[in-house]
Amino acid sequence: MNAPYPTETAADLAAAAAFLEMAEDLGISTLLDSADGFTADDVGLAAPDVPACEWAGFLAALVAAGLLVAEEDGTYRGRPDLPIVRHEAGYVAWAMNANRPYVANAPEFLRDRDGAGAKYARDGRWVAVSSRWVGTRGFYPPAFAEIVADHPTRVVDLGSGTCGLLANLLRQRTDCTGLGIDLSPAACAEATRLAARAGLSERLDVLNRPIQSLVDDPSPLAAADVVHAGFVMHDIATEPDVLDGVLRACRAELRERGGKMVVVDAVPFATEPRERAFSALFTYLHAQSMGVRLPTREQWESAFHRAGFASVRCTALRMPGSRMFVVSG
Amino acid sequence: MNAPYPTETAADLAAAAAFLEMAEDLGISTLLDSADGFTADDVGLAAPDVPACEWAGFLAALVAAGLLVAEEDGTYRGRPDLPIVRHEAGYVAWAMNANRPYVANAPEFLRDRDGAGAKYARDGRWVAVSSRWVGTRGFYPPAFAEIVADHPTRVVDLGSGTCGLLANLLRQRTDCTGLGIDLSPAACAEATRLAARAGLSERLDVLNRPIQSLVDDPSPLAAADVVHAGFVMHDIATEPDVLDGVLRACRAELRERGGKMVVVDAVPFATEPRERAFSALFTYLHAQSMGVRLPTREQWESAFHRAGFASVRCTALRMPGSRMFVVSG
Repeated sequence: MNAPYPTETAADLAAAAAFLEMAEDLGISTLLDSADGFTADDVGLAAPDVPACEWAGFLAALVAAGLLVAEEDGTYRGRPDLPIVRHEAGYVAWAMNANRPYVANAPEFLRDRDGAGAKYARDGRWVAVSSRWVGTRGFYPPAFAEIVADHPTRVVDLGSGTCGLLANLLRQRTDCTGLGIDLSPAACAEATRLAARAGLSERLDVLNRPIQSLVDDPSPLAAADVVHAGFVMHDIATEPDVLDGVLRACRAELRERGGKMVVVDAVPFATEPRERAFSALFTYLHAQSMGVRLPTREQWESAFHRAGFASVRCTALRMPGSRMFVVSG
Repeated sequence: MNAPYPTETAADLAAAAAFLEMAEDLGISTLLDSADGFTADDVGLAAPDVPACEWAGFLAALVAAGLLVAEEDGTYRGRPDLPIVRHEAGYVAWAMNANRPYVANAPEFLRDRDGAGAKYARDGRWVAVSSRWVGTRGFYPPAFAEIVADHPTRVVDLGSGTCGLLANLLRQRTDCTGLGIDLSPAACAEATRLAARAGLSERLDVLNRPIQSLVDDPSPLAAADVVHAGFVMHDIATEPDVLDGVLRACRAELRERGGKMVVVDAVPFATEPRERAFSALFTYLHAQSMGVRLPTREQWESAFHRAGFASVRCTALRMPGSRMFVVSG
């Protein structure tokens, strides 16, 4: 029962990705992750209009697949290494689900990039979910460790999505406050709702605006001793003036109290054998379908130096092509 | 350059599946597979309305991903182990692309199976393509070897699709004729076209009808010394009378000349660690979304015996859950 999930075969990974996608859409991902396990009644609560016999069939399939373990007392429990499987499934979900409009319409994108770009959009929810699955092991832990290392009292997260990172941080450090900025009204509304539910409303501000706005109005950065930006800076990298303006605004605020930026982003076409395949896909889809040209490591470093930062440290993270820049001074 | 493709990581497999899907849709899969390599001019011919700069960008991404090797003379060549990568990508393409309507609409299927079943259909082309990718290493070679082993002079293929198996067979054995039966008018038309192009029209008959029709009219089986059926018998297994009728018709014809049936199909919820995850997905999607209950190995064997076959040999093939039944007597 506790043999490691045989992730070495492609068929296993394909099946896990499909089943975990179905489970996510059925609203039971958190039950699968629960250390206490769950019962048939619990899944019934997750989606009351699904007949019990259909739930039974789905759970039986997850057990047969080895993703779920059925205990004798009627409790179900995700297998102990489910976080590893989910992280691996995240790459498949990102490539084959979140980016489906780009992958499935490649001929149209190659014939008429602008026309296709105007016609096809990704499902923002699955972009977020698959990024989270990849991130749990692909880039999130080292970024989080870097953020908490200097005991910050105020952290600003650029491109904060539903503020998952800030919520985790504030739960762990009760003397800390946070502010998240995101372009998406839906993500900000969800962040506000989740913060209230977690009792964090008093320490977590959510601001619905583009990070470009920091050039003209840097006030949201006030009092920050850490500014984090995960996979958002590349969106403004095509406009060097905007990128420089945002970085300068961050530095002006951070310098006063010896703070730092933690920027996690991607470099194009990483050449390490471990990285090259996924990095090539990530780079190509961003360039071809989203008009985003990822800066090279050197271009990232130049941008930080241009903004006045004296110290720039670059680390390769686990997600192929991802890099963490810790920037200060 | 010739290091084995690092298929051990999920990210590699996800990227390969996405890139190979794009290449297939762009019409260059056969170029990637070509032992002679190909040039930028060749891809231009595959899709003349794609601008050369877009082709260059796509090929550069495939090279960066390690799927393609660029020679100094301007020739491109798929990496030597591309067939292995394509086989592995086949599982991902089957789960995450061919079955997308079922995977992406799981809540709807669990709430209202019949309604969702009437609303969502799979893309037949990608069902066929992903099955072919899986089959090249997952079940096709042993079935082919079994078919040619006794030097047949006439082979009938049930559920023949575009008659790829028969065409390969007739090319290899010039004293052999074949007949393919398939439900799909589009597949039969394509099979007829491909047979003509391959100069096989005189030896290859294509019949557009359901295999159920063999119960009342077994004439298409005339003179066969091998009848092959790949993943088609499970479609009629829910109607035991029909299954028995088809198998009896086959036996009546084969018995006269000591021929055999080669049936490749799936068993439900295979329990081997190597098989369980993909087999569970295959079983669940067939039951939940297509109303197909796969027979167990014992049920398959009973059906063959009921039809009068004396000898039934079952072999597990590489595709998780797939089995080959060689049946005679």
